[in-house]
Amino acid sequence: MRPNERDPQHVRPIRFTRDFTAYAEGSVLVEFGNTKVICTASIEEGVPRFLRGQGQGWITAEYGMLPRATHTRNRREAANGKQGGRTMEIQRLIARSLRAAVDLTKLGDYTITVDCDVIQADGGTRTASISGACVALADALNKLVAEGKLAENPMTMMIAAVSVGIVDGEARCDLEYVEDSAAETDMNVVMTEDGRMIEVQGTAEGQPFTHEELLTLLSLAKGGIEAIVTAQKAALTN
Amino acid sequence: MRPNERDPQHVRPIRFTRDFTAYAEGSVLVEFGNTKVICTASIEEGVPRFLRGQGQGWITAEYGMLPRATHTRNRREAANGKQGGRTMEIQRLIARSLRAAVDLTKLGDYTITVDCDVIQADGGTRTASISGACVALADALNKLVAEGKLAENPMTMMIAAVSVGIVDGEARCDLEYVEDSAAETDMNVVMTEDGRMIEVQGTAEGQPFTHEELLTLLSLAKGGIEAIVTAQKAALTN
Amino acid sequence: MRPNERDPQHVRPIRFTRDFTAYAEGSVLVEFGNTKVICTASIEEGVPRFLRGQGQGWITAEYGMLPRATHTRNRREAANGKQGGRTMEIQRLIARSLRAAVDLTKLGDYTITVDCDVIQADGGTRTASISGACVALADALNKLVAEGKLAENPMTMMIAAVSVGIVDGEARCDLEYVEDSAAETDMNVVMTEDGRMIEVQGTAEGQPFTHEELLTLLSLAKGGIEAIVTAQKAALTN
Amino acid sequence: MRPNERDPQHVRPIRFTRDFTAYAEGSVLVEFGNTKVICTASIEEGVPRFLRGQGQGWITAEYGMLPRATHTRNRREAANGKQGGRTMEIQRLIARSLRAAVDLTKLGDYTITVDCDVIQADGGTRTASISGACVALADALNKLVAEGKLAENPMTMMIAAVSVGIVDGEARCDLEYVEDSAAETDMNVVMTEDGRMIEVQGTAEGQPFTHEELLTLLSLAKGGIEAIVTAQKAALTN
Amino acid sequence: MRPNERDPQHVRPIRFTRDFTAYAEGSVLVEFGNTKVICTASIEEGVPRFLRGQGQGWITAEYGMLPRATHTRNRREAANGKQGGRTMEIQRLIARSLRAAVDLTKLGDYTITVDCDVIQADGGTRTASISGACVALADALNKLVAEGKLAENPMTMMIAAVSVGIVDGEARCDLEYVEDSAAETDMNVVMTEDGRMIEVQGTAEGQPFTHEELLTLLSLAKGGIEAIVTAQKAALTN
Amino acid sequence: MRPNERDPQHVRPIRFTRDFTAYAEGSVLVEFGNTKVICTASIEEGVPRFLRGQGQGWITAEYGMLPRATHTRNRREAANGKQGGRTMEIQRLIARSLRAAVDLTKLGDYTITVDCDVIQADGGTRTASISGACVALADALNKLVAEGKLAENPMTMMIAAVSVGIVDGEARCDLEYVEDSAAETDMNVVMTEDGRMIEVQGTAEGQPFTHEELLTLLSLAKGGIEAIVTAQKAALTN
Repeated sequence: MRPNERDPQHVRPIRFTRDFTAYAEGSVLVEFGNTKVICTASIEEGVPRFLRGQGQGWITAEYGMLPRATHTRNRREAANGKQGGRTMEIQRLIARSLRAAVDLTKLGDYTITVDCDVIQADGGTRTASISGACVALADALNKLVAEGKLAENPMTMMIAAVSVGIVDGEARCDLEYVEDSAAETDMNVVMTEDGRMIEVQGTAEGQPFTHEELLTLLSLAKGGIEAIVTAQKAALTN
Repeated sequence: MRPNERDPQHVRPIRFTRDFTAYAEGSVLVEFGNTKVICTASIEEGVPRFLRGQGQGWITAEYGMLPRATHTRNRREAANGKQGGRTMEIQRLIARSLRAAVDLTKLGDYTITVDCDVIQADGGTRTASISGACVALADALNKLVAEGKLAENPMTMMIAAVSVGIVDGEARCDLEYVEDSAAETDMNVVMTEDGRMIEVQGTAEGQPFTHEELLTLLSLAKGGIEAIVTAQKAALTN
Repeated sequence: MRPNERDPQHVRPIRFTRDFTAYAEGSVLVEFGNTKVICTASIEEGVPRFLRGQGQGWITAEYGMLPRATHTRNRREAANGKQGGRTMEIQRLIARSLRAAVDLTKLGDYTITVDCDVIQADGGTRTASISGACVALADALNKLVAEGKLAENPMTMMIAAVSVGIVDGEARCDLEYVEDSAAETDMNVVMTEDGRMIEVQGTAEGQPFTHEELLTLLSLAKGGIEAIVTAQKAALTN
Repeated sequence: MRPNERDPQHVRPIRFTRDFTAYAEGSVLVEFGNTKVICTASIEEGVPRFLRGQGQGWITAEYGMLPRATHTRNRREAANGKQGGRTMEIQRLIARSLRAAVDLTKLGDYTITVDCDVIQADGGTRTASISGACVALADALNKLVAEGKLAENPMTMMIAAVSVGIVDGEARCDLEYVEDSAAETDMNVVMTEDGRMIEVQGTAEGQPFTHEELLTLLSLAKGGIEAIVTAQKAALTN
Repeated sequence: MRPNERDPQHVRPIRFTRDFTAYAEGSVLVEFGNTKVICTASIEEGVPRFLRGQGQGWITAEYGMLPRATHTRNRREAANGKQGGRTMEIQRLIARSLRAAVDLTKLGDYTITVDCDVIQADGGTRTASISGACVALADALNKLVAEGKLAENPMTMMIAAVSVGIVDGEARCDLEYVEDSAAETDMNVVMTEDGRMIEVQGTAEGQPFTHEELLTLLSLAKGGIEAIVTAQKAALTN
Repeated sequence: MRPNERDPQHVRPIRFTRDFTAYAEGSVLVEFGNTKVICTASIEEGVPRFLRGQGQGWITAEYGMLPRATHTRNRREAANGKQGGRTMEIQRLIARSLRAAVDLTKLGDYTITVDCDVIQADGGTRTASISGACVALADALNKLVAEGKLAENPMTMMIAAVSVGIVDGEARCDLEYVEDSAAETDMNVVMTEDGRMIEVQGTAEGQPFTHEELLTLLSLAKGGIEAIVTAQKAALTN
């Protein structure tokens, strides 16, 4: 049985709290069960050097974890003097996913930086980050439109992300930490609300996985993401 | 007039939320008005090399700010590859203050690391951090006693901190950001509940300050700290 | 048409040159068309601290690119003072893939570090690296067995990797640089010789991709990897 | 008794040697007893980016210690790859203090960097640094006036600094190392020649200190600083 | 006897393979026996800031070693976060030597960066690097002339480098690793084809060396460099 | 004519001030004309890891320059976060030279670190550093013998260093800054008192230099070093 007697195909309780902090153009606390991430979207004028004069905006992302977001304390990356490989990998994934949801040629001369800072980690921090970041980004873009800085909203669709995996031989959706650390196969999926794929990252932790297992996991992910998008939309219409 | 018609001698609404996150031995969200800091106390066995075999424990602290805790986004220190001078200065202050509240020779062979991460900054982040850290530390120490790892609680007193300053010629307690950035003199004071001093750091931002001004500011600080200690104790008895 | 009139399902000419350099326990120059990578496997006694006393060995990987492996010169990471996010992401992928091919509990108290250094880059450097690294690792493990340091070879299967993607609406196998930079969807797949999956990393560069497109790409990857494994085995029996 | 039978209210022998090195616009060797610091003031045209176009100059400071300035050798910060927290804290204090002595709006488009490098450390390196830096700064500013680059000297007053503390229950002025390391309370005070305060930084190393102790220490500091300013002025009129 | 019964005054088999990689303006694999270095010359428009507007071009160099170029694996400098002192020393030597071979005032507004990456190290990596870099640089400069970007070739002469040393009391030319590590005196010499000197760096590893020994070593170096220049010229006329 | 009408073969006024600072086991201020360097030798027990159990001691060196030792201010290396290539090259040269003067197998289980910090730079900082470091090292070694920690002094000879070069077609000894920056050829020589060589580093800054020029320069160096060794010995017998 899963923790809390959850069904294999069910996501944990999902919650998006908008305007969680006061200053960012978009600020969302996202909760996937006990995983909690503060996502802020910050608008700045101008684009990075490599994009200047090309008639498009830019979206980037950074990811971090408070040292005691986890069961035991991790060293603070700022004190270490560098971001670890896992952090780099995750923030690149978040940024690519968000850029896929936006028509950058309609973003004008703006850069939006989305910061995802995990304050409590119980598995799925990268998928919660992407899902929350999308809501924060929507708020920031709506602000640009409301202020007349953009003629139309350049976001083309909602995206969300979920982890799926095989634990004890059973395919499960939205793994929490105890499941994640025991998973034979672990997959993070970023999808649009209509089930098309933005990112698929599957890893065999133990045995290689078969084509059939991949199909099962993708199907689970599709259901989970539908539930998350529903929660995103409900939050945005509050 | 001060923002929100606050009296010069009054602190902002103070709130301590214990057990704010799930894993740390002590975890407190402290709010001084709109300034919000997550303070966690993490217990680890062993002491730093320079203290080994000397029959005492150790307390240290780290400080950080989410990039968009402020009105405009600051670069992430982990991405910069180093902690800034202001960060270093603040975390050293927090650590010294906490060590003054504890009899380290009664802490056994433990190191407690207190992380103060600002999620929203409206002035006074270092004084809120110290005040919240003291509550998180109390929880962690109580846990060591409850688990039988320490015979008695090594904390000798509660400490709290407040900023005071002279703004528009008026001495004020617990400055918020718009006051802090306009202050001629700015002082951070860490005191015990009975009004003795742990740290006094006063800075003339504009004109030098006189002995009389110093006395006025210290008196204001004393009153503010009494209010904060009262809130700390109320939180700890909930 | 693809460059060089290549069929969509075909990989580029694949070549593995063993014993390419003199000192490493395994040393392979792998070529996927114009992409050339030196892969060396280095055996060291002992395991990282987090594995000590757990009765298993360890395999790790590092990745680099000569500054002028590419059309324009990239700054040297050693001179920059840090490895970039792309480098970190790739070396983590290589290491995970290799560990999946080996029963670490049969590796004894050894750490094998595989270095993949790209001397010429024309797309697919990470998949060429994984495929070449597997051959270098096989040589190193055979050496441990031949020297009587291991009772049996802990490698459980050959693995190989290939990139697949959709370019100009056409699904293609083993993208070279001009294709890769124009791809709408780009996927790196690591598989065993019998078609089971180790890693699947698909990214929508432009439009999201559909379930059907994913299936087409995986099928192409399977064919490509069979060809690469055939070349690996031929090289190892020379 | 204090070392060398010094009276509690007395500073050590103070000496300022101007033009200690040849190239800087101001160069002073300051000695507080056995503490010796080389202070140089370097004038450069232009101001930092955040001040451009605001009609003011800038003063900044850096602090360092030769590795064997102390009883045992400290690691060289340049070899460590970063400045420590103590260094950062001290150089920020020096810079703030110097800026308080100068009307920056009359400094024109110049940046003055004051380097304080300790060649021998016997307690009070930061207060000696501030006191010596003020003399070096005065020389540099006089040079700008003499060369007709500034119409008038923008320094508004002399400042000096001294440490005071409670050692063996006795309040003492200008602690040397053996006193400093045994002090229950330690305070660094930066004052103007007429006794107004620029910086007050008091720390309880052992027991918290009382309001009365604070007053005693401030009074001692005032006397010490008068003696130091007298020595500064004597040096400047040589 | 030397390894492979080589005569004391003979260099190892020398080989220069031009166009070793595809993209650089000059790309040479240089082999001094078992020492193998990839040298690429990359042309970029513009010069470093300190040379702007001075009517000259610039040549710089970087040096690296693959982690397993040597008998035991060395840590990757990019992972270490800095280049070591030996690397810095060597790349400065390569750059100075190359600049001595070129009239920079005839190089126009170009910077040429020569990267020397050692893939196999058996002694003499710096001298092989210089000798190979000179060929790669010649190719790059010829390309600038052929494309009409420079009116004439600014290279004024060929240069080459060789190591010489005293091993077991015998003066020898072009030391390989086992000789180098046993040498009492070790000297690296960079010369023009007509025997004039660009760089002489001699080091007593054991006993100091005499004037006579120096003369013997220089004479050996002269002969070795003549042989290397002959090989360079043969390679350039292929 | 040379500055100050100095003869081409003459060194500048040379001065060694022993016990310049109070704490180091050896502490020397060395002056070559206006070039001034503080050299301290620090004894620590134990040797680096790579030497443990091999029955020998170790000598290492570090080099630095105060930011305003030069005509214009250089950035502080500690603030830059790394030592530059020139610094690394020089400190490696100093260390190698000192080790050549000592029988490390008679140094016991000690590491001596020599710090050379330039407080005023007028050319020849590395040769002054080596010459001063040798005196500081002698003092430190004498202390070990005097304290009974070593049976005999392991220093086998005095060494000294001087720069020589060709300026305006004239060979000159001990170049000062204006000469050094105009030199066509520049050579640093480290010799024993009897004229044998420890290090020779010659560089053609403009035209290559001939064999005859090399001989002339070495002869000048020999004379200069004799004068410096005389001054070293005089200082050590004071």
